[in-house]
Amino acid sequence: MHILITGAAGMIGRKLTARLIADGSLGGKAVSRMTLHDIVTPEVPADVPWPVEATASDFSLPGEAESLVSARPDVVFHLAAIVSGEAEQEFDKGYRINLDGVWKLFEAIRAQNLASEGAYKPRVVFTSSIAVFGAPFPEAIGDEFFRTPLTSYGTQKAVGELLLADYTRKGFLDGVGIRLPTICVRPGKPNKAASGFFSNIIREPLAGQEAVLPVSEDVRHWHASPRASVGFLLHAATLDGASIGPRRNLSMPGVSVTVGEQIEALRRVAGDAVVARIRREPDPAIVAIVDGWPRNFDTRRAVELGFRAESSFEEIIRVHIEDELGGTIA
Amino acid sequence: MHILITGAAGMIGRKLTARLIADGSLGGKAVSRMTLHDIVTPEVPADVPWPVEATASDFSLPGEAESLVSARPDVVFHLAAIVSGEAEQEFDKGYRINLDGVWKLFEAIRAQNLASEGAYKPRVVFTSSIAVFGAPFPEAIGDEFFRTPLTSYGTQKAVGELLLADYTRKGFLDGVGIRLPTICVRPGKPNKAASGFFSNIIREPLAGQEAVLPVSEDVRHWHASPRASVGFLLHAATLDGASIGPRRNLSMPGVSVTVGEQIEALRRVAGDAVVARIRREPDPAIVAIVDGWPRNFDTRRAVELGFRAESSFEEIIRVHIEDELGGTIA
Repeated sequence: MHILITGAAGMIGRKLTARLIADGSLGGKAVSRMTLHDIVTPEVPADVPWPVEATASDFSLPGEAESLVSARPDVVFHLAAIVSGEAEQEFDKGYRINLDGVWKLFEAIRAQNLASEGAYKPRVVFTSSIAVFGAPFPEAIGDEFFRTPLTSYGTQKAVGELLLADYTRKGFLDGVGIRLPTICVRPGKPNKAASGFFSNIIREPLAGQEAVLPVSEDVRHWHASPRASVGFLLHAATLDGASIGPRRNLSMPGVSVTVGEQIEALRRVAGDAVVARIRREPDPAIVAIVDGWPRNFDTRRAVELGFRAESSFEEIIRVHIEDELGGTIA
Repeated sequence: MHILITGAAGMIGRKLTARLIADGSLGGKAVSRMTLHDIVTPEVPADVPWPVEATASDFSLPGEAESLVSARPDVVFHLAAIVSGEAEQEFDKGYRINLDGVWKLFEAIRAQNLASEGAYKPRVVFTSSIAVFGAPFPEAIGDEFFRTPLTSYGTQKAVGELLLADYTRKGFLDGVGIRLPTICVRPGKPNKAASGFFSNIIREPLAGQEAVLPVSEDVRHWHASPRASVGFLLHAATLDGASIGPRRNLSMPGVSVTVGEQIEALRRVAGDAVVARIRREPDPAIVAIVDGWPRNFDTRRAVELGFRAESSFEEIIRVHIEDELGGTIA
């Protein structure tokens, strides 16, 4: 089984690659080849027991998507994207990569499908986002709530979802789109993304560092761990297409908690001294942005189809300690 | 005020043109110039009291959209589209005109907006379709139901809606998207569109001709007259943008009736002898297609914003008799 991962140099791409190497198989079929792609050449882990090709290109440029799928990978994980803030600042770039690039990738797959008279029809796992929803929305967003993005990134992801569903309906590919929750605890350095604090206030105190909380404790949001997110991708890659039906895009399960509940979970796991490293410093700009974000979802379709997230924020913290801190707190 | 109409050679385009000429103004502002565009040169009505340019081109080809908006029309009615059946048969053509062409048009407007430092920001009225919805759906589709198109045409229209909303949000244009009901009674010859019978069974008997009814009388569907549809377009062109908010795409009001109710309305308006010209000839293919179509809508947002359709199917028939038959039945 040949697997193509775009956006393979990113945090989720690297974790997905590592997990596939650890498992050696996907859906009961042995992995035999991997193509890792990104705008910069992804690092190839040591001692992979099958051929790995690491390539760098801008897949939205003419010919690049065709080149990427010319070897007809069996499964395509399309993780590459211009992120929300950048897509909002750089309108043309966001549309070129997140809309035209996605369309070009699907077209390149369709060309292989037509050339093979339909024999080639890969599973395409498309990472969408809860940014396809924009306020106002119900307290818990259900499976049939309409897409009303309030960012260009959310618009581009919503278009990708529509294309994925139509190309699947026409039999050109076999797509599953998954809307990831905010990933928490995101490893690495604190970043300046508006959503960064959700992870910062857990990761930094656990590492002995101070973290800034720019919003009030009653802000509620929707989270899943990096491990759960990789699990969503693997499940989406192996799910029986017929069981999904024509509605190919799904909000993934997650944990809905307030910032206050996040902090109390941290206290239970790591104690008062760790929690004391969180410094309150309200930032009206971040408060305003976060105010328009989803708080909770009713993801019954995804749950019925077997997708699983953590069951509590405490579990999300424990996953972080296991996967990033070697099981112990500093 | 300079008005551009794409798809001006079509049935609605011609009626919209005639109405604007009869009114002489739009939203209280005098019309001073008109550009009528289609893939074939639209006919220019006689004695129009302002300059009219009639042009033919494929606006999806490089440079054509730019050329169309280079004179900076104040209002753009974008009616041009590849229709549902053709978009399903000719995948590339449908995507080229209905998705890439729409995008190119919005991009051309954006280029003028940027060149004018934001001073040029035309109202763009985009005709979408109830084909953005696909079964299963609730008995009446509300304003917040999600788009699940089951045709490429519906997918392309849903993408156009998303682009319209994002380009509006960013201030590049001032868009309003309207999802027209099935237009009934459609004038002209019987056509082979799957929806043709809804109009055929009214128009043909009224003209002394036999009509074929291919589905059962309990099929329910959603209708508005050509006159009401032109009214939607004019209202969408003049509506205060601030009152609409960021959700720029609206299902238009209409009349939900069963085929049996259509026939009883025809009997009340025109008598038994006219109704006797309807011949039942079930067509399983058409039955299957129509089974996946919307039956009813709850369009409270559009109604609150002042959009008005007919209040009964009888009124739809009377509008047809007034507008197409000179007020009398053959």
